[in-house]
Amino acid sequence: MKIYGDGKSGNCLKVKWVSDRLGLSYQWIEIDTLKGGSRTPEFLKRNPWGQVPTVELDDGRTLMQSNAIIRYLARGSDLIPQEDFAAAKMDEWLFWEQYSHEPYVAVCRFQMAYLGKKASELDPEKVKRGYAALDHLERHLGQGRFLVGGAFSLADVALAAYTRVAHEGGFDMDRYVAIRRWIGEVEASLGLPSITHQQT
Amino acid sequence: MKIYGDGKSGNCLKVKWVSDRLGLSYQWIEIDTLKGGSRTPEFLKRNPWGQVPTVELDDGRTLMQSNAIIRYLARGSDLIPQEDFAAAKMDEWLFWEQYSHEPYVAVCRFQMAYLGKKASELDPEKVKRGYAALDHLERHLGQGRFLVGGAFSLADVALAAYTRVAHEGGFDMDRYVAIRRWIGEVEASLGLPSITHQQT
Repeated sequence: MKIYGDGKSGNCLKVKWVSDRLGLSYQWIEIDTLKGGSRTPEFLKRNPWGQVPTVELDDGRTLMQSNAIIRYLARGSDLIPQEDFAAAKMDEWLFWEQYSHEPYVAVCRFQMAYLGKKASELDPEKVKRGYAALDHLERHLGQGRFLVGGAFSLADVALAAYTRVAHEGGFDMDRYVAIRRWIGEVEASLGLPSITHQQT
Repeated sequence: MKIYGDGKSGNCLKVKWVSDRLGLSYQWIEIDTLKGGSRTPEFLKRNPWGQVPTVELDDGRTLMQSNAIIRYLARGSDLIPQEDFAAAKMDEWLFWEQYSHEPYVAVCRFQMAYLGKKASELDPEKVKRGYAALDHLERHLGQGRFLVGGAFSLADVALAAYTRVAHEGGFDMDRYVAIRRWIGEVEASLGLPSITHQQT
């Protein structure tokens, strides 16, 4: 399997983290989206939409959309709850992440960390919605160790990808006690270095 | 099962259509989002995020996010491909719909059809991205009868929900021959009246 990904992108890191956690063998092909790497004719042949991450299986079939990819790679593993309703709650978080979290938290972070914007130059509506998403996460994580049924799942992977670097988008994470506790647990589950520690 | 939904919302209609197709019994509770129906204390108790559709099972558990709901309701049915990779391609479309189609096509349609904006008052960037999404759909539907593996699936339900009413958002659908053919097939599969017919 080949993973076409940009190491700066939380969406791409989700795929790497899940593959590593499951012990899947893969070749990581770095695509620098800032330098137009996802718009070359060669890449567009694999993914006409020009998005990373894109996964290419050994038989040449391709799959895009980070949460669809991790759901496919993790099928049958302990990263997806066995019980149907718990799996549905995981899906609820995956769709919520892409609709109500990523477009605000990740976009603010991208604009500050990679386009060089200052916090004061961000769209206030995006910042407001980013905080609304983080508040919603905080409320849930105050009630349980992980997002779904007390066990680590793809919901945690997907939500941690950009929440973990939200401070790079100007979000004040000091106020989020439960989120910071949870990020540490996600990092431990995935064998990642602690980014929260570096932050303080 | 109770479905809290707004009949004007494609996201809510997805849940109704899938429930009807599967012969599930449910009570539809109309929530008029334009009149603040999803912001009442009573509704926020069921869904703290204040979103429709929300489904309440007979045991009181709730589920939100349209695509997570239809994926749960349709589990084990012919609306989800049995083969793992085909199911993953269906998920790819579901996530793509919420990230790259709905925020443009549905939002333009909402602003024109329900907030009374004129086409000239829409955000040009949203219109451009809406057309990019429709172009992408057209390319795929020129290659096959349905979106995934030639068989009707949740991918078609999810994408048809707002594509079917895209003309209400000012999108010129005359140019999309494959999409119009496909909408007719989706309507036939779901037993819906033909909206494309009314359009011409």
